[in-house]
Amino acid sequence: KLKHEVKDCRELIERLAAKAKLNPLSVEFSQHLDKHDKLSYLRDEFNIPKSRDVIPNDVVALKPNESSIYFCGNSLGLMPKRVKHLVNQELDVWAASGVNGHFTHPYNRPWLSIEDTVVEKTAEIVGAKPIEIAIMNTLTSNLHLLMASFYTPTKHRNKVLMEAKAFPSNQYAVESQIKFHGYDPATTLITVNSPPGEYTINLDDILNTIEREGSSISLILFSGVHYYSGQFFKLKKITAAAQKKGCVVGFDLCHAVGNVVLKLHKWNVDFAAWCSYKYLNSGPGGIAGIFIHEKHAHDFNRPRFAGWWGSDRRSRFQMDKPFNPIPGAGGFQVSNPSVLNTVSLLGSLDVFSKTSMVQLRSKSILLTGYLDYLLDKQLNGLGYKLITPRDPHQRGCQISLVYDEDKLDKVIKGLMKHGAVVDERSPDCIRIAPNPMYNSFSEVFRFVKALKSIMEELGFKFEAKK
Amino acid sequence: KLKHEVKDCRELIERLAAKAKLNPLSVEFSQHLDKHDKLSYLRDEFNIPKSRDVIPNDVVALKPNESSIYFCGNSLGLMPKRVKHLVNQELDVWAASGVNGHFTHPYNRPWLSIEDTVVEKTAEIVGAKPIEIAIMNTLTSNLHLLMASFYTPTKHRNKVLMEAKAFPSNQYAVESQIKFHGYDPATTLITVNSPPGEYTINLDDILNTIEREGSSISLILFSGVHYYSGQFFKLKKITAAAQKKGCVVGFDLCHAVGNVVLKLHKWNVDFAAWCSYKYLNSGPGGIAGIFIHEKHAHDFNRPRFAGWWGSDRRSRFQMDKPFNPIPGAGGFQVSNPSVLNTVSLLGSLDVFSKTSMVQLRSKSILLTGYLDYLLDKQLNGLGYKLITPRDPHQRGCQISLVYDEDKLDKVIKGLMKHGAVVDERSPDCIRIAPNPMYNSFSEVFRFVKALKSIMEELGFKFEAKK
Ligand SMILES: Cc1ncc(COP(=O)(O)O)c(C=O)c1O
Ligand SMILES: Cc1ncc(COP(=O)(O)O)c(C=O)c1O
Repeated sequence: KLKHEVKDCRELIERLAAKAKLNPLSVEFSQHLDKHDKLSYLRDEFNIPKSRDVIPNDVVALKPNESSIYFCGNSLGLMPKRVKHLVNQELDVWAASGVNGHFTHPYNRPWLSIEDTVVEKTAEIVGAKPIEIAIMNTLTSNLHLLMASFYTPTKHRNKVLMEAKAFPSNQYAVESQIKFHGYDPATTLITVNSPPGEYTINLDDILNTIEREGSSISLILFSGVHYYSGQFFKLKKITAAAQKKGCVVGFDLCHAVGNVVLKLHKWNVDFAAWCSYKYLNSGPGGIAGIFIHEKHAHDFNRPRFAGWWGSDRRSRFQMDKPFNPIPGAGGFQVSNPSVLNTVSLLGSLDVFSKTSMVQLRSKSILLTGYLDYLLDKQLNGLGYKLITPRDPHQRGCQISLVYDEDKLDKVIKGLMKHGAVVDERSPDCIRIAPNPMYNSFSEVFRFVKALKSIMEELGFKFEAKK
Repeated sequence: KLKHEVKDCRELIERLAAKAKLNPLSVEFSQHLDKHDKLSYLRDEFNIPKSRDVIPNDVVALKPNESSIYFCGNSLGLMPKRVKHLVNQELDVWAASGVNGHFTHPYNRPWLSIEDTVVEKTAEIVGAKPIEIAIMNTLTSNLHLLMASFYTPTKHRNKVLMEAKAFPSNQYAVESQIKFHGYDPATTLITVNSPPGEYTINLDDILNTIEREGSSISLILFSGVHYYSGQFFKLKKITAAAQKKGCVVGFDLCHAVGNVVLKLHKWNVDFAAWCSYKYLNSGPGGIAGIFIHEKHAHDFNRPRFAGWWGSDRRSRFQMDKPFNPIPGAGGFQVSNPSVLNTVSLLGSLDVFSKTSMVQLRSKSILLTGYLDYLLDKQLNGLGYKLITPRDPHQRGCQISLVYDEDKLDKVIKGLMKHGAVVDERSPDCIRIAPNPMYNSFSEVFRFVKALKSIMEELGFKFEAKK
């Protein structure tokens, strides 16, 4: 039975502990889970930072030489070891043979088609066909290129629907696109909110909004996993409801790709975009990706911002030929891509190829479920509010905790001293993202223990819940 | 007297040879020029490929272990040695400290502001103020972002003026922008042609077209140095004439930046864009750059495709703030930039910082002038047509030769055997670009000698012209 078919993580954790005849709150149980983790060998593919190296200069770690607890892959994924090797190979090719690397390449990655090395592997991860994938540019610039094609407002259908509190860059991008077409974001951008005081957006509210406003909505642009709350939206259902109303549906998947199982082709999503520096571990500012559904592959009538890299390869260097778009997502490429960034991504995708998103997700549900369980049992929810859905199907690996504003700094600094890296969203939130690729159950145990001692220093008293 | 004030290179070459009491066609004279080259020490900053490494697998070099004659920096610049060091430093920071590299950086390049390391140095090279420069994305995607802001067609002013036979990607980009606004490229895109049978476009024809059509032209988008003919357009005069007519003026400078002296601020150019993998030596698919004149720095009313990286740094991570554009080019950034590509560019800019564009251009005029002189005297123009302007002020370092179609392959293969790398534009053109950064006068001598022997094998007979 796949872990991602599990409905309740707490029940699962206790069942596993009972089977192993261990106390689910004991360190031994965390070690037991590690021992039975079929993906634990993947950790060795990554450079795991030491505690001393992940903290600012003004913080002193308690055990500086110990490995850090890196739960920040939602912001920047760790470096796969093979990346260094691949990047240096490309530097060596450039050094040794200059422009000839475009044609003759000692490692069989001629730069003229360097994107071919990463398209299929990416397609696998997002549940797409290769024709639906292009690796190019950066996330926000791709969102603009995609909206140039897929946001085609008309007098009676011009609205854009997003989740409330979408990532600022996406809000800016959408607002600027709306203005570009001469509409007013105040009335043209509509959002679905979570109920007052809550952080999770109800699926029913999304579907009802689509039902109610759909005929005036041109584009629905949601994130796959919300960057702040960690909520994993029901992409299939949103897509189906939206398309029934004649809307185009696109997703920003930068917190979803490499994190949850995606079936973009099957779900009939129109387009999607993501960055690769989070769960795809391609390094700071790495090259981004786009998905365009196969059903649009031969539609050359949509507006599109064209460039030579999207034009047929055979005639690309014949300088008198008109734009002859490559069918599919490849036709949306505009420029020759960065070779360093492409192989940096490749180094990570090669690690993904050793496993599958189903396996990763299966571990992830257990790993984050274990975190959720320990937080619940050991910290009793005191001093923070856990804002991420408890249902594993409605979240990825990330759990977000909201603190009173005056506590955040102390919590973050305290965690740093214990070598734990989480992502801080001022003024009051930490995002904790145990990554099934390189994190362990023992790290989750250490993390909760550290957080507990910090909270105790802040005056909270805990008892293990029954 | 600066070499770039020279009007006639042939006269200059002969004067220098006479002064040195050397035959201008002799190998000794090339050595003499190298000995007096104040920039020759820069060659050592680069990895110079060996002959054996720059040629395809099916060609055997005559002297495989000799350094190649790399005259292809117009396509891909050679790798500065310090790039490897810088890129590996960043990989090490990523490996050691993950996300913390954004804030604390052992080499003082925190990723959160990594673009700061390259903005001023780039401004220096293009004759701009730092506020006018942003380093971001790739060339064609930047052209689209810039046109979204600066191509604002109206009913009576909607045309775009380009040089005829502009680089295909730019044609595709402009055509797609025109269509995006609902106009027809066939009538909305107008071009200035060279006279029949010629390759150089007359300045008068450009200025007359602007005079005649200016009031209906929205945007003038020319290249700085034409990728094919090597013609260096009179950017200052074009800008002035265009602005008198109320047109916006932008330039694609990818063959001009690092090649010729630019004074974008002084010339009052509205905007420009370039790639960095040619004369800026930043590696395949390196990060691109944009210029937006200071006069637009505080104009927030133009349409623009926005992203968080263009929003004020202090509030960028406060997630509930509206878009608050950074004044100047920085406000056009959309995404966090690639760290690997940024430091790869930095490695090259650090070499530029050792000299200046005036010094480089001064050597370049002599180096390309010497090539022009030797071609003229030794090959007598037989078997090819030199299509680049002879006037050094109307070209950069590149000289283009057009052959009969059936000869091109033989010439290219022959040059390869001699370890000479030039850029091939099928069906009939070679582009030869001696780079003052890393090429020498002796290499020019070797090159012309090789080309002569190849042409002799093809049946041409030469005598040195008097
Ligand atoms: C003149 C010119 N413009 C545009 C481009 C397109 O560059 P990119 O692929 O970086 O967008 C090139 C590429 O060589 C070029 O030479
Ligand atoms: C949800 C989301 N969207 C968009 C972005 C912007 O990414 P980029 O700077 O790569 O365009 C981010 C960056 O973290 C993000 O988290």
